[in-house]
Amino acid sequence: MEELSVSSALKLVVRGTRQDTVINIGDVKVGGNKIVVIAGPCTVEGREQLLETAHSVKNSGASMLRGGAFKPRTLPYSFQGLGEEGLKLLAEAREETGLPIVTEVMSPQDVKTIEKYADVLQIGARNMQNFSLLKDVGKIEKPILLKRGLSAIINEWMGSAEYILNGGNNNVILCERGIRSFNRLTRFTLDIASVPIIKKVSHLPIIVDPSHAMGRRDLVIPMAKAAIAAGADGLIVEVHSEPEKALCDGPQQLRLNDFRRLMEELDTVANAIGRSL
Amino acid sequence: MEELSVSSALKLVVRGTRQDTVINIGDVKVGGNKIVVIAGPCTVEGREQLLETAHSVKNSGASMLRGGAFKPRTLPYSFQGLGEEGLKLLAEAREETGLPIVTEVMSPQDVKTIEKYADVLQIGARNMQNFSLLKDVGKIEKPILLKRGLSAIINEWMGSAEYILNGGNNNVILCERGIRSFNRLTRFTLDIASVPIIKKVSHLPIIVDPSHAMGRRDLVIPMAKAAIAAGADGLIVEVHSEPEKALCDGPQQLRLNDFRRLMEELDTVANAIGRSL
Amino acid sequence: MEELSVSSALKLVVRGTRQDTVINIGDVKVGGNKIVVIAGPCTVEGREQLLETAHSVKNSGASMLRGGAFKPRTLPYSFQGLGEEGLKLLAEAREETGLPIVTEVMSPQDVKTIEKYADVLQIGARNMQNFSLLKDVGKIEKPILLKRGLSAIINEWMGSAEYILNGGNNNVILCERGIRSFNRLTRFTLDIASVPIIKKVSHLPIIVDPSHAMGRRDLVIPMAKAAIAAGADGLIVEVHSEPEKALCDGPQQLRLNDFRRLMEELDTVANAIGRSL
Amino acid sequence: MEELSVSSALKLVVRGTRQDTVINIGDVKVGGNKIVVIAGPCTVEGREQLLETAHSVKNSGASMLRGGAFKPRTLPYSFQGLGEEGLKLLAEAREETGLPIVTEVMSPQDVKTIEKYADVLQIGARNMQNFSLLKDVGKIEKPILLKRGLSAIINEWMGSAEYILNGGNNNVILCERGIRSFNRLTRFTLDIASVPIIKKVSHLPIIVDPSHAMGRRDLVIPMAKAAIAAGADGLIVEVHSEPEKALCDGPQQLRLNDFRRLMEELDTVANAIGRSL
Repeated sequence: MEELSVSSALKLVVRGTRQDTVINIGDVKVGGNKIVVIAGPCTVEGREQLLETAHSVKNSGASMLRGGAFKPRTLPYSFQGLGEEGLKLLAEAREETGLPIVTEVMSPQDVKTIEKYADVLQIGARNMQNFSLLKDVGKIEKPILLKRGLSAIINEWMGSAEYILNGGNNNVILCERGIRSFNRLTRFTLDIASVPIIKKVSHLPIIVDPSHAMGRRDLVIPMAKAAIAAGADGLIVEVHSEPEKALCDGPQQLRLNDFRRLMEELDTVANAIGRSL
Repeated sequence: MEELSVSSALKLVVRGTRQDTVINIGDVKVGGNKIVVIAGPCTVEGREQLLETAHSVKNSGASMLRGGAFKPRTLPYSFQGLGEEGLKLLAEAREETGLPIVTEVMSPQDVKTIEKYADVLQIGARNMQNFSLLKDVGKIEKPILLKRGLSAIINEWMGSAEYILNGGNNNVILCERGIRSFNRLTRFTLDIASVPIIKKVSHLPIIVDPSHAMGRRDLVIPMAKAAIAAGADGLIVEVHSEPEKALCDGPQQLRLNDFRRLMEELDTVANAIGRSL
Repeated sequence: MEELSVSSALKLVVRGTRQDTVINIGDVKVGGNKIVVIAGPCTVEGREQLLETAHSVKNSGASMLRGGAFKPRTLPYSFQGLGEEGLKLLAEAREETGLPIVTEVMSPQDVKTIEKYADVLQIGARNMQNFSLLKDVGKIEKPILLKRGLSAIINEWMGSAEYILNGGNNNVILCERGIRSFNRLTRFTLDIASVPIIKKVSHLPIIVDPSHAMGRRDLVIPMAKAAIAAGADGLIVEVHSEPEKALCDGPQQLRLNDFRRLMEELDTVANAIGRSL
Repeated sequence: MEELSVSSALKLVVRGTRQDTVINIGDVKVGGNKIVVIAGPCTVEGREQLLETAHSVKNSGASMLRGGAFKPRTLPYSFQGLGEEGLKLLAEAREETGLPIVTEVMSPQDVKTIEKYADVLQIGARNMQNFSLLKDVGKIEKPILLKRGLSAIINEWMGSAEYILNGGNNNVILCERGIRSFNRLTRFTLDIASVPIIKKVSHLPIIVDPSHAMGRRDLVIPMAKAAIAAGADGLIVEVHSEPEKALCDGPQQLRLNDFRRLMEELDTVANAIGRSL
């Protein structure tokens, strides 16, 4: 087993003396005692879809709203997201619900635009080692949600966090979203052990994305509970008002009532480990 | 994503009508509402070590005692276990504590001997597709703990269970113990998603081994909680009275007081999902 | 990167002074300058199929005949091979063609029977760490073809060879047959780098099985050439007189004329690296 | 096994009617009968190091010169390359040797600058799904060397090529550079099967990078031969005049005389499959 490099994303001494980082996003605190749940559709597809979903997840207890406006797609012919139009709809949803907004940035050129609208900028798994993008989001003040790469080891993930911290932006939220393996019944393998490992080696908060990891709705709730029981500071979950009509990743998006059930069941698990939703 | 083969290890209809199997081992029920915790040393090394550990895990609330008498080792020069002498010590520990015994069988030639002493026979990960051994344990009546192979897909694991069921032994307990991946800070990657997947597709109970998966003591408790939160029917955990002196796998074995803490913390997680320890 | 354990399967000094092992099977030498090609059907299905295939591969230049009589199958309901009847057919094919026979042994109970008929006993990938079987084939004199486990690291593979050598049988042929990865267009990922690694660290000969690694006929020839160019001492290739009618692994078995083409194209590659077919 | 998406990177009909693409870079043709070998240091470190290496690889028969000026590094504190100063040195080396230059582009902001100096722009493995960068290099005319991502499936790699082709740049050279696996004696696992797979499904040329895949000098030559035997159109190999003093990846860089030997040994392998160096 490998040693981790020294970096400012690490606790000063492993099993560490450095205090854990708590990130403030409006009234929401990521990394404190309260579990944070970010919910919303994979992609912003239209006004009605977004607002219906936003109101519903808010009522079920979500702390933030997620939604993709710029989408990383395997093929250039796939729907690439609504772009700035999608960002405006997200801002409207925030206006209506009070939920802070999390959305992905894919390119240095888009940082300024997305920064105007979003409360948290997400770096997707495929860009975890897009160092030029990491440097650019290191220069802004808004918090960054840094997803783990599809086959990144912990050392590399910490290195990517370091690029952002080193630029002056201390607000980095890590996100485990599943790794590539030989498994075939799920899209990825959720590596929940990364949660207690990060808690040991780093002062940064870590959340878990069971939706992308599983790629199927029916496994999201048990894996969400597992993540919280292992010590994660929160979750990011895909929820859609009509997943059957989703333009992207329909099979993994929870229905509105699935999400309500998730929040109810999660509450007792959070309490069991001395935290709250 | 791949379809599962039809087999008697599967629920008759997926999301299934077949009732979940509950396996009785003395007073212990595996697969019922109560979470089962199997604890004990990696290897039976001597009388004192075993009895001290057995009494301690019993007092902390363990339901069964584990301990290796026949050990699968990468090199022929490594300590191979005490053999039948180890089985006798396990039987003595059962006598003293009342805990049923789980121990590994590695060869068709040993089935009869081990059956005489053990309450549950374990098939290790490296023998998951030792079909000749699977056929032989399918002919006995004692329950079988079937570990998932290091890189087995669910379909293959179900196929191996099928060999045992097909021989007439319906008492199969599945055990997720981590899979091979590129991760380097842990020995294996604990694939907790296999728990809800098995719960969906099979009527067999499933437990989790966080000790072998992690290979390091400090991650065992959070991963144990995660496994239970995800719906596992129990755990198998390595506990040693003096891990520093262990002949095998010292770094992953919990100390006696670590195990007590595990049981205390697990209790609230079990309650949170409507189960008990 | 990890250190290899000291073992008698290793060269005495890495980059080593110990002479490479050459194994004699009748007139065939494995590990010498001549490339050895073992060919034949996945499974012995009947007299006509076997003899037609055996004569054809002999004419195309194969050095040995392979064929499964005892078959490891994921499900107990799949065709398990003809057993001793299959061994007798293999012996008849040897009688007719002069080709030595390679066939798999899956169980300690079968070692004696298979030893009577076979010239080389194969330990399959799923039994690479079936230590009880390894010990038993270590006591016989016939050469052992030891396939690499589906997710075995080099250290573990060497350890398994060590069990056989340690029993007194020095005739071990290693066989790389592909490892588990996230790839989906092939059954396994052929890890050709294991060939030069084994050549550096061990004195044992190594051959490659492109048929099981790829799981598809159309990639067998290029991967066979790659293996030889990387320094492999030979190949084991599945060939069937009518792959469409095969009871097992039809899509990966070469047709008789494919195999003839393989041998022709391989000849120039072997010459290019100073070896011959 | 999964179906590939329809795309212009694919042959029109699989086993295809579309003619293979040959890319012209000065006098060098990639994808024709002649094997192309790109050689040079991991990183441009200084004038003397680069020119000495460039002249030497030219004399040994290299077709193009590689060298990193903008380097993707896990940590921000590691040497990040000489930037435009490195590009100028590369241009000087081209002036002196006549070898076309291949160098990496990591950011949309740098495309214009690098385009001025380089003959081929490389997209590194970590940027294979940096879609914004792919779109930008799709708008230029210079050929693009597209490395496969560390855990990319073929479908995703083809999708990334598609982004470039779809932008109007038809000059895409694919490069297999090893994938993540559980192996520990090499940095990555060279997936040579991707060569014949790409040859079947795509009209684009494919080369192989054994240096990054292995991470150790002593395996580069056998893996280079294997790649050519499997049908690769060329190689990209790291060569350094004094690897012990290299600022990056020293252990995997060939010495100047190693490279001469590689070229000599490769020549006969190329001839064996009807191609030339």
